[in-house]
Amino acid sequence: MVEQGGADGRAAVAGLFSHTGAAYTVGITGAPGAGKSTLTDALIARIRREGAEVGVLAIDPTSPFSGGAILGDRVRMQDHATDPGVFIRSMATRGHLGGLALATPQAQRVLDAAAFPWILVETVGVGQVEVEIAGTADTTIVVVTPGWGDSVQANKAGLLEIADVFVVNKSDRPGVAETVRDLEMMLELSVRHPWRPPIIETIATSGEGADELWGVIGEHRAHLYRSGEVEVRRAARLREELRMIVAAMLRAQVEDRCRGEEFEALVRRVEGREIDPYAAADELLR
Amino acid sequence: MVEQGGADGRAAVAGLFSHTGAAYTVGITGAPGAGKSTLTDALIARIRREGAEVGVLAIDPTSPFSGGAILGDRVRMQDHATDPGVFIRSMATRGHLGGLALATPQAQRVLDAAAFPWILVETVGVGQVEVEIAGTADTTIVVVTPGWGDSVQANKAGLLEIADVFVVNKSDRPGVAETVRDLEMMLELSVRHPWRPPIIETIATSGEGADELWGVIGEHRAHLYRSGEVEVRRAARLREELRMIVAAMLRAQVEDRCRGEEFEALVRRVEGREIDPYAAADELLR
Repeated sequence: MVEQGGADGRAAVAGLFSHTGAAYTVGITGAPGAGKSTLTDALIARIRREGAEVGVLAIDPTSPFSGGAILGDRVRMQDHATDPGVFIRSMATRGHLGGLALATPQAQRVLDAAAFPWILVETVGVGQVEVEIAGTADTTIVVVTPGWGDSVQANKAGLLEIADVFVVNKSDRPGVAETVRDLEMMLELSVRHPWRPPIIETIATSGEGADELWGVIGEHRAHLYRSGEVEVRRAARLREELRMIVAAMLRAQVEDRCRGEEFEALVRRVEGREIDPYAAADELLR
Repeated sequence: MVEQGGADGRAAVAGLFSHTGAAYTVGITGAPGAGKSTLTDALIARIRREGAEVGVLAIDPTSPFSGGAILGDRVRMQDHATDPGVFIRSMATRGHLGGLALATPQAQRVLDAAAFPWILVETVGVGQVEVEIAGTADTTIVVVTPGWGDSVQANKAGLLEIADVFVVNKSDRPGVAETVRDLEMMLELSVRHPWRPPIIETIATSGEGADELWGVIGEHRAHLYRSGEVEVRRAARLREELRMIVAAMLRAQVEDRCRGEEFEALVRRVEGREIDPYAAADELLR
């Protein structure tokens, strides 16, 4: 319901909203094939070992398949499919990206209200939308692989901006040292935050580096709470979400005003050169 | 000024709008390298031979270079650079696609008011935005080359929808017959219009087929005027433009409402779980 965003979804959000705020969200993003799902799988296992429950949103903005079905490369997560302490939801959408960016915080809210202390948000891809979605987490992990630079050249700045932790996965492959050096240099050149994103080397398939990653997530979480930055970030996300909701509502108003007899009458007046298009738009808005 | 879309641009459109409506616009679109510029060049020469003046908008939605400068692959058009009867303007924009879609009809209006009887709008690319821009013409020419199918697979339907004329350029290359057959089949399968888009074979570099293309443009133009469809189409474009202007104005309102003390006060109330995000958005809109 909340993914669809209609009246029922709004009512659901209104009802559950006061029960939210306790969950901690970890975002995992990176290019297809970087090993995000395997890494997410390792984090699920790690959280379960702590005795905690975990909700997972597996988001693929480029796939048309949505809903309960597990996406192709999430098969590994099915290890946890029969574990009642793990809830996995795949989200995707065809050509409706703004919708997905707005649906993600609502889905997080449902898991939050359902009392999952941990929420993992895995997003496939490195485009602007993926970065926006991944950026709605408390801790954001950007997963790269040796030689990643070429594939994400266009959006390095966007990834750098959201990364709290860099993971160099498949660190048994050649080119790891160069990749780490590349990342170090990027971090060096960027504005320094109080938190400097650590760079963790992992081999997700064998579990190597997973403990270190889990440790770093804990450190970042402690840093956010200690510094009070967790509230600052969540407020910033809320501002962005409010903007998206207002934009969606106004978009609906455009649809609404730009049809019907009054609209057609205006079109005819513009056709007759009685009034120019901008003046007609002003009149519609009035 | 009208490209920028600010207050001066609006005032300019308001001032010149009553002088528009006489120009006839031909759109030329297709994948990069299909030979659009050479074909546009041939059309410019053809129009000049008729003794008429022509305004040209060369639009590249993927390029960051805009303004008076001639884009790289438009060098050929410089044949006409010293001809006072030809005005060429390059338009491009970085990451601001909606802006370009709205700027194009304004630029057409300026050329129209400046009494150019012919306006050529050349658009690079075959994505949705390019199709939208090219679709703002009275006659739209879609340029393909032998073997084009693979490169534009994703948007064949979009191209089919806007095409009034198909040009198979570089028709001295192998695969022409297959390409023509492919197009014929697509046209066969699509809903029939009163006008069935003809398929013209050209070799733009040698001028072969240019006369036939020019003749077909004339036929399509005559068909539009005879059937009254020219008014129907222009009204449809106007509706679309009005929607874009209203959307742009409402977007400005979002920017405006989603900042300031009232907005921050609402964010704090949402943070405190006093009010949910959708209710807060409602309040902002009220």
